[in-house]
Amino acid sequence: MNVILIHEHEVASDGRVRLDDRRAEHLRQVLRKTSGMPVRVGLVGGWLGTGIIEGIAADGVSLRCDFTEPPPPKRALTVVLALPRPPVLRRLLAQMTSLGVERIVLLQTERVEKSYWDSPALATESIAEQLQLGLEQAVDTMLPQVEFARRFGRFVQDELPGLAPRILVADPRTMKPCPANVTEPLAVVFGPEGGLIPPELERLVGAGAEAVTLGSRILRVETAVVGTLVRLGTCS
Amino acid sequence: MNVILIHEHEVASDGRVRLDDRRAEHLRQVLRKTSGMPVRVGLVGGWLGTGIIEGIAADGVSLRCDFTEPPPPKRALTVVLALPRPPVLRRLLAQMTSLGVERIVLLQTERVEKSYWDSPALATESIAEQLQLGLEQAVDTMLPQVEFARRFGRFVQDELPGLAPRILVADPRTMKPCPANVTEPLAVVFGPEGGLIPPELERLVGAGAEAVTLGSRILRVETAVVGTLVRLGTCS
Repeated sequence: MNVILIHEHEVASDGRVRLDDRRAEHLRQVLRKTSGMPVRVGLVGGWLGTGIIEGIAADGVSLRCDFTEPPPPKRALTVVLALPRPPVLRRLLAQMTSLGVERIVLLQTERVEKSYWDSPALATESIAEQLQLGLEQAVDTMLPQVEFARRFGRFVQDELPGLAPRILVADPRTMKPCPANVTEPLAVVFGPEGGLIPPELERLVGAGAEAVTLGSRILRVETAVVGTLVRLGTCS
Repeated sequence: MNVILIHEHEVASDGRVRLDDRRAEHLRQVLRKTSGMPVRVGLVGGWLGTGIIEGIAADGVSLRCDFTEPPPPKRALTVVLALPRPPVLRRLLAQMTSLGVERIVLLQTERVEKSYWDSPALATESIAEQLQLGLEQAVDTMLPQVEFARRFGRFVQDELPGLAPRILVADPRTMKPCPANVTEPLAVVFGPEGGLIPPELERLVGAGAEAVTLGSRILRVETAVVGTLVRLGTCS
């Protein structure tokens, strides 16, 4: 937790905030803050700033907050991800958020197990929790947008082309290496653990996506997604 | 499991192999192989090839193996990693292996919790298991070398300079961006979750390491390591 994130409704009209959950615990037990000390704070959906600790005790922490700086810029990047198994989804949501991804689309493909769509990892609160962990890690305040696309064909035809002027699809079978340090707005599509099936890849390419590879080694989805995002230079 | 890895002592003099563990299970239950079908095999420390299934039943699988192709090249890359907490270590060992890292040094630094050195994740069999998962993922046969360096000062002075002609250290406080697509032999140093302390960074730089950053966002060690390796172009 590299920033204490605060929601607008938690800020009183005089800028004071009272915390009594894991954030208070973190200030007391991990950061060992005492009265009068400053702490990095951020308003979810708003700016970053400084909180001065006015009181700290076992039953909670009170802070006076000043939000004075904009959050780090997001990268104009959409990740389209075949829905992975729940533990991988959880870790990837946090990692993609910490890397500054602006928009995440979770996609049904032939090799996505249908039962994954019923996982508690897809509940609004569970997704919100992972996104918040990612923001807290990277000292950011702006949540990425998360969407679901359960109809592959319709998504590729109607929505994919509008996501970004340049669309990549990671595919270990192609020879074209994934570019590095791309600054233009991008969408990147990642297949599931067993890969996209050939007709899916064809439809993506037909809709304007460029197939690119990270090399001939077959990588886990988690490795490929994080690696590609850093390679593309998503971190500001 | 994208390749069935076999140890030399398991191969009979006529090239036949009998499996009755999770590999046999995988062939039967996941790949649903039947008699006469080919399967990708690899000899740990040796070559890749094809196994023809001669018999497959609940009590085991027998294969006739031919090892005909060299494994994918490793990248001349050493990762020096402040010992992370055990679950992260396990995942990273497998991921670094799948990315073709040649050598891994696990390092003690000021902010590494000493108790991590007593974790079962550091047992020889536990490390071997993760390395094997990484090889199975990436269709490789060559295990990376894993070493421990529990004395930071001595390691940096005596061993680090000999690891590679170019040494990088990941540090979010520097301004110099991490390069992409480096082909020369490299060593890359990653600090622990709380970062290297300034005197440690100074000693590393004094020993010839270049501090580089992935950007101002603070990333988890797992995200930074995987991202940096893919960015450097470690995948063959």
